[in-house]
Amino acid sequence: MINYNKETVAGTVALFEAPGKDFTLKQYAVRPLEPGEILVKNQYTTICGSDLHTFCGLREEPSPTVLGHEIAGEIIDIHPTHTGMDLKGRELKAGDRVTWSIFAGNPDSVAAKAGMPQKSTPLFKYGHALANAPDVFHGGLGEYCILKANTAILLLPQEIPVEIAATLNCSISTVAGALRMAGDIKGKHVLITGIGHLGITCAAMCREAGAARIYAADISDKRLNDARAFGVSDVFNLAEYDHELKAYLHDTLPLKGVDVVFDMSGSVAAMQTGLECLAIGGTAVWIGAVFPSKGITIDPENIIRRLLTIRGLHNYNFTDFEYAYDFMLANWNRYPFLQAIEKEFSLAEAQKAFTYAVANKPLRVGIRL
Amino acid sequence: MINYNKETVAGTVALFEAPGKDFTLKQYAVRPLEPGEILVKNQYTTICGSDLHTFCGLREEPSPTVLGHEIAGEIIDIHPTHTGMDLKGRELKAGDRVTWSIFAGNPDSVAAKAGMPQKSTPLFKYGHALANAPDVFHGGLGEYCILKANTAILLLPQEIPVEIAATLNCSISTVAGALRMAGDIKGKHVLITGIGHLGITCAAMCREAGAARIYAADISDKRLNDARAFGVSDVFNLAEYDHELKAYLHDTLPLKGVDVVFDMSGSVAAMQTGLECLAIGGTAVWIGAVFPSKGITIDPENIIRRLLTIRGLHNYNFTDFEYAYDFMLANWNRYPFLQAIEKEFSLAEAQKAFTYAVANKPLRVGIRL
Repeated sequence: MINYNKETVAGTVALFEAPGKDFTLKQYAVRPLEPGEILVKNQYTTICGSDLHTFCGLREEPSPTVLGHEIAGEIIDIHPTHTGMDLKGRELKAGDRVTWSIFAGNPDSVAAKAGMPQKSTPLFKYGHALANAPDVFHGGLGEYCILKANTAILLLPQEIPVEIAATLNCSISTVAGALRMAGDIKGKHVLITGIGHLGITCAAMCREAGAARIYAADISDKRLNDARAFGVSDVFNLAEYDHELKAYLHDTLPLKGVDVVFDMSGSVAAMQTGLECLAIGGTAVWIGAVFPSKGITIDPENIIRRLLTIRGLHNYNFTDFEYAYDFMLANWNRYPFLQAIEKEFSLAEAQKAFTYAVANKPLRVGIRL
Repeated sequence: MINYNKETVAGTVALFEAPGKDFTLKQYAVRPLEPGEILVKNQYTTICGSDLHTFCGLREEPSPTVLGHEIAGEIIDIHPTHTGMDLKGRELKAGDRVTWSIFAGNPDSVAAKAGMPQKSTPLFKYGHALANAPDVFHGGLGEYCILKANTAILLLPQEIPVEIAATLNCSISTVAGALRMAGDIKGKHVLITGIGHLGITCAAMCREAGAARIYAADISDKRLNDARAFGVSDVFNLAEYDHELKAYLHDTLPLKGVDVVFDMSGSVAAMQTGLECLAIGGTAVWIGAVFPSKGITIDPENIIRRLLTIRGLHNYNFTDFEYAYDFMLANWNRYPFLQAIEKEFSLAEAQKAFTYAVANKPLRVGIRL
């Protein structure tokens, strides 16, 4: 463990400057902690779909930046003004392994008080901020991360692998939020469009929540096949069988459609198909489309006569974060979540990791720090 | 009271054959009751917006038909196989004044068991069925109505005026359903687009449910002015002040928009404006657009990043029907609901009543039978 009080600590980050430009490895001194902050030595970062969107220029973030927000690490130092507690009220100390919310919010803001801490003002998001020395250690593609005041932290028990712990604070928690938005899943027929990491997590979470049957649609046969191990019963390649999916659900389900559809793909066509596959009274939860699209035309008469609900969710609240944590502790080894981290790279290989992820579309690639 | 057992009863209906064709007054014998049925002598019918849509050809129903589904009447006879109970378990007898659900459903169907009796199969809807002698007495524009088995009936106490009782089984109950879909209204900022009879009812119901402030938007200054008596604080003429509405809510509300928007107008422009006026985490409930439209283009990224919910509702369930009844018993004389029945006609004047309603857009016209 680094004795942060007695020596100057420096660390490397892989800086992202612009789409099409290679990551640059740079060293910076770690600045002293401010009130309420915690210094963490990053151990593992998984690359999220939104990191890839930024990398490809599909969406724009402040730059230069240190990407990566699905992170697990070890506490190096805690500022004396920090409560010293994690989200569950457990004591934190140097050497503890932790993960933390993707955002540091303002608990006194109107949105936070309304149950949406992820939309509070001001808001800081790890892996999404301008790298402006000495403020550079706020992403997963760096050796350290300074956790700002009002970051929700969760202590990680030894048994949970660090690779899985890293995914907790984005993919798993967002899916937990999606289930909250969908309401009780017990006995429901569920369709998941887009069966990447969010999709497989959603399948496993719905299965554990007692779904009657889980259907998955994607354009990749490989992903669809992999999904079966996460609780999916029936798979549909949307590129080939679009009409068949709707017809199949109509002919086989008691209400002629699914009760809930989760869109994890962000594809306008998939969201449209999802709406058509809903039973009367059904709910569509959209979380995938966090980038510009051409929009979806919906028929209000159809929404009304069929009693449909459409709900959007971005990020998650603290309840979701805890639900995700509890779910993963109980289930990480009951489903092949570890295999979902399909390939691993070092920080120096950041460019290679991103290029690989874009080309091969693995569920996740990991960066071991 | 007619002694139905001892004489042949005949009654008049105002038959609707096609848009643009005058109503025809016709006399028919009332057929004997079948198991589970109740014969009612209609006392009052209010003309709903959907009746006007059919009258104008904006939507198509089986014809010839006996329009009118917002009805209150007096029980003439009860088939011995009927439970003899209303929805609240109170005994029913000849001479009782009642209103009843717009539909007779099938309690054993999947939709009914899933809490959507209004979508059960088979389904019968008063004021929407083919008039095919001897089956003609199933609408409000007739002297009698035969209540089919599995119609939810509510006994009306003497104090509630028959004009108001008539509106219970469509407008008021649908609004009750809309509030159920919106979730807890207490402390919420609410916008209502389209302030006809559904809109004023929604305002009063939201006020009684503890809304923080109620905003109304419409294209009629008269309606907007009338709305103030139903609990609306701020009114906006959408035709003139579209951008100002959004800007005003953004500048004055803590979350920069309303928590809930109810669309009662069915106007695509109003629904679009409503979505733009929502705060982060807000909910849009649509019930107005029960006719074809050009559709609405929505941006999934906006729905997701702003955590928005869109919910459609058509008709209502039994909980809503009871909520509407309890609400109206407690509040009918606390708001000018009686004045909302702006003009009254006889059954023989059905043509005049509809023509007047289309030309003058009163909140409701009534037919006293």
